[in-house]
Amino acid sequence: VNRYFDDFGVGDTFQSGGLTLSEAMLLDFAMKYDPQPFHLDVEAAKQSIYGGLIASGCQTLAVALRLFLSERVLASCSLGSPGIEEIRYKKPVRPGDTLSVKTEILEKNPSRSRTDRGVLRIGYMVTNQNQEPVLTAQILHLVLKKGHAGE
Amino acid sequence: VNRYFDDFGVGDTFQSGGLTLSEAMLLDFAMKYDPQPFHLDVEAAKQSIYGGLIASGCQTLAVALRLFLSERVLASCSLGSPGIEEIRYKKPVRPGDTLSVKTEILEKNPSRSRTDRGVLRIGYMVTNQNQEPVLTAQILHLVLKKGHAGE
Repeated sequence: VNRYFDDFGVGDTFQSGGLTLSEAMLLDFAMKYDPQPFHLDVEAAKQSIYGGLIASGCQTLAVALRLFLSERVLASCSLGSPGIEEIRYKKPVRPGDTLSVKTEILEKNPSRSRTDRGVLRIGYMVTNQNQEPVLTAQILHLVLKKGHAGE
Repeated sequence: VNRYFDDFGVGDTFQSGGLTLSEAMLLDFAMKYDPQPFHLDVEAAKQSIYGGLIASGCQTLAVALRLFLSERVLASCSLGSPGIEEIRYKKPVRPGDTLSVKTEILEKNPSRSRTDRGVLRIGYMVTNQNQEPVLTAQILHLVLKKGHAGE
């Protein structure tokens, strides 16, 4: 299905598949981007308020994006993102956790300056294997309208 | 310097060093987390509205975090983050761009339930080598108060 701005309705929801985050993936991301002891050092993490290694919130956000993109809902129309609102880390993500994301179209705003595109505000809710929410966010996605791409 | 919640004042600013993002780093992040053509495929990116490969906004955010953490401003007191407000992607980040981040303490909120900690709202402004802003965000950081850590 090739979807465009016109095809989305407020309230539409999409459910992703799952992705298991290994300890190696957590440590690799932490070393590159978020080298705090509770993300980077198994031994130090045991002594932290988390009682063990947890994923960088930024990695959980990236995984949410990856899971949603894999559903190809925006594959024909995505022009990138102008920003993100209100990311909330609800619960730590730990090595071996399996995450999936449910997305919902919260708002549609046609661009005022460009007639070929609009912005979708999409709510992301990431849950773990116990159906506990671990992250919520609202990501703005700039998307093409119908008849303006190489459809 | 070991800084704690008590040591920060609204208006305090910190300037990071720089980090050059190679094309390889952009492609690696895109493959793992944000596999959209303008992040992942040099040839497809040329045909996109960006006219060439650009970094995933999520990677730019991660780099901002990394640059700020490298200054060790929060090294003795960070307990993680409850969330992020209002990320705005101001300008595309391209292969070879050198990013740095200026941070500013925007707000201090002592925790109501836990007397040993509080939340700092920190404004991040990421600029490229031409001093053009590429990303702004407000990240919430949970930090320890003095006298509650192994100082």
